[in-house]
Amino acid sequence: MSLADGLLEELVDALAGRVITEPTSMEAYRRDQCLVAVAGRPLAVVRAGDAADVVTVLTIADQHAAPVVIRGAGTGLAGAANALDGCIVLDVSRLTALTIDPVARTATVGPGVLNADLDAAAREHGLFYAPDPGSRAISSIGGNIATNAGGMCCAKYGVTADHTLALTVVLAGGETIRTGRATHKDVAGLDLTRLVVGSEGTLGVVVEATVRLLPASPGTATAALTFPTVAAAVEAVLAIERVARPSAVELMDETTVRAVNLMTRMGLDEVPTLLVVTDGSDHAAEIAAVVEVAAAHGALAAFHTDDTDEGTALMEARRVALTALERLGTTLLDDVCVPIHRLPDLEARIAKAAAEHGVTVGVFGHAADGNLHPTIVYDATEAGAAERAYACFDQIVLAAIDLGGTVSGEHGIGSLKIDYLERQVGAAERALMHRIKTAFDPSGILNPGRGY
Amino acid sequence: MSLADGLLEELVDALAGRVITEPTSMEAYRRDQCLVAVAGRPLAVVRAGDAADVVTVLTIADQHAAPVVIRGAGTGLAGAANALDGCIVLDVSRLTALTIDPVARTATVGPGVLNADLDAAAREHGLFYAPDPGSRAISSIGGNIATNAGGMCCAKYGVTADHTLALTVVLAGGETIRTGRATHKDVAGLDLTRLVVGSEGTLGVVVEATVRLLPASPGTATAALTFPTVAAAVEAVLAIERVARPSAVELMDETTVRAVNLMTRMGLDEVPTLLVVTDGSDHAAEIAAVVEVAAAHGALAAFHTDDTDEGTALMEARRVALTALERLGTTLLDDVCVPIHRLPDLEARIAKAAAEHGVTVGVFGHAADGNLHPTIVYDATEAGAAERAYACFDQIVLAAIDLGGTVSGEHGIGSLKIDYLERQVGAAERALMHRIKTAFDPSGILNPGRGY
Repeated sequence: MSLADGLLEELVDALAGRVITEPTSMEAYRRDQCLVAVAGRPLAVVRAGDAADVVTVLTIADQHAAPVVIRGAGTGLAGAANALDGCIVLDVSRLTALTIDPVARTATVGPGVLNADLDAAAREHGLFYAPDPGSRAISSIGGNIATNAGGMCCAKYGVTADHTLALTVVLAGGETIRTGRATHKDVAGLDLTRLVVGSEGTLGVVVEATVRLLPASPGTATAALTFPTVAAAVEAVLAIERVARPSAVELMDETTVRAVNLMTRMGLDEVPTLLVVTDGSDHAAEIAAVVEVAAAHGALAAFHTDDTDEGTALMEARRVALTALERLGTTLLDDVCVPIHRLPDLEARIAKAAAEHGVTVGVFGHAADGNLHPTIVYDATEAGAAERAYACFDQIVLAAIDLGGTVSGEHGIGSLKIDYLERQVGAAERALMHRIKTAFDPSGILNPGRGY
Repeated sequence: MSLADGLLEELVDALAGRVITEPTSMEAYRRDQCLVAVAGRPLAVVRAGDAADVVTVLTIADQHAAPVVIRGAGTGLAGAANALDGCIVLDVSRLTALTIDPVARTATVGPGVLNADLDAAAREHGLFYAPDPGSRAISSIGGNIATNAGGMCCAKYGVTADHTLALTVVLAGGETIRTGRATHKDVAGLDLTRLVVGSEGTLGVVVEATVRLLPASPGTATAALTFPTVAAAVEAVLAIERVARPSAVELMDETTVRAVNLMTRMGLDEVPTLLVVTDGSDHAAEIAAVVEVAAAHGALAAFHTDDTDEGTALMEARRVALTALERLGTTLLDDVCVPIHRLPDLEARIAKAAAEHGVTVGVFGHAADGNLHPTIVYDATEAGAAERAYACFDQIVLAAIDLGGTVSGEHGIGSLKIDYLERQVGAAERALMHRIKTAFDPSGILNPGRGY
């Protein structure tokens, strides 16, 4: 009997009915939505029913030194949840407990709760959950925490880590710790909560999270601003930040706007465009100030509305950007982030890479965060096109590092960008990250080989 | 020749002129401003002149397994910089390089730069540095980072960690790492920056920090609001947050207001008082909304001003609170933080502890953060008074844990609160923190025995 046989037997004994081993059934658990990252074949999939099941899996796996890959809703974009050969895929999507404390303004949720469901529950109490990744309707809080998910609202509200107060985490040996607390400040000991957020399943399994909720906005105002160049648009973003605190500042380049027009017949001006949303108590006055500043900083045209529904319709152009680009060909979605004032340089480097490799790149993203999603579009039926697309991708990622930025602003390293991590952080820092991983997971069973 | 002798010789050889060993001269380097925490006697004090000196000290100390205590401006309030017997005190206060990048809106500073000097330099460019500990005129950025310092502006702007983008850190063996980057978002690898912030000299020595600067506020408005009870004041804070985003929401209880009146003859109403500052583009409208909500939530009286100077004068009452309480006797300053809505419970527990131990406790602090500084006032010449003061202190700290809070909101664990850490976080989490410390500092030379 091999080591793996004993492992399977123990899992099945301990978790009857929650273990899947049939290859066809396991197929759906092999990868997330990063279709270009490799995915192995798991030994088994465990669909945990509660935190105790997670403890059981991690205890047994640790004894067998068996690799474990944690899986939530499977909407990741970097392959962090992709199976490794012979691993246990630990699916936590059924941990969907949800409690709102309207007085404390917190929610305590299982990792399987969908972001949009949490937000909807909060809104019943006049509150909202700020982090709003594009996938919010289908992505779960566990995955949002694993990747420190961003979204459009980061411009004002920050990322998932900024809203995560406390975590219950099962460590590799089956031990459970509770990090953080529901206070605004805390300097007692190391910030383990912040360390686990964004660790992409390498440190432990989050089985419960307490997150901060904020009072819901009284309404929003929205502006669409067009510019002759991306550089001019970025210049305007820096000026806008002096007079307002928008909740979203989204950028689309010409290529993206053109793709959106093709799909939606929206008839937008095909020039670099900023979409800006304000949601404060004075959102109408704020958007007026935004429009004024934009006009003074080279905007070609400006349209704005204080009507929330009309604003939502306007933002739809940005929301469909990726879908619109996907209609033009096979796409390779990237996620790089630079200091905001380096965005024009990044844009220039992207254009250069696109030209050098003969591919189309549509650029959209979160301008106020310096976080872009250059999307390479190519014809997969054309010989050599995929190679050129990947070469372009590589060049863009390296450009981000070169500009003092990061190879991932919000999607994560996953299995897609492992090779870039050390180029960004250096060997000493990566080695330190590995030692920290070992402090959590001495046997190295959690997402081994990924990241650090 | 003892181990220590060889160590001293090596230090003096390598760092001629920067090593102090004369006991009288070393006296000034033995403790920070937490007068009630124990302080040992150092073997030597090294006044580093640059990062290379820090590398030299940590390389030599590591070879000798000699304890090192890092020291900045010495304004800490928890004894984290207090000397250990036989240690090297590594003074980094002379690392005062300061560069502002007004386009990137960042500052890159040595750890010895004073918080107020950084802020003043930023203001020359229409920017400001948000974290504003009460000690900002005399405390340095290195220490602010080590304790993850807060201040009044946390209500809106968060703590030091929220503004720290990147760190150059020398590890115990002399290796230098560079954590983080000057981007708004980054999910490449573990968040080492956040881990080092607040680690109180246990993980490494920060020799350079890049911090975020924000556009300076166009002006401020200030309100003074009085309430019949602390509970009513807290109720109002929760309501205020629904209509405004104040940059400060400070609370003083009756005892504190009375002490302020005694010292300043300000003639304030001696009832629980909130001081609220708004600094947004619509600060005048915001403060009007604050006053309206306060009136609807039981305020006895409200005064507000849109004049920044008048507001500063009003806030002076809060700024002198500790000094005013110190005039009443010997004081024991605490720093506890609970979820905001538990503040009335904390206040009740503090009153109970004061009554049970027969001491006076003045309470003031950062209401919107749930972070209070109960200050125990006693007569040190009275037999048993100190014991009763410490017993009251103990009861308050444990009450904070009991209410889901933390034993330190912004001053740190230092050497003052080591015994409380495990009671708060539990043995498993503390052990994990120790393993992480070991990942950074395998020989355990940095602030050994403190924290974890």
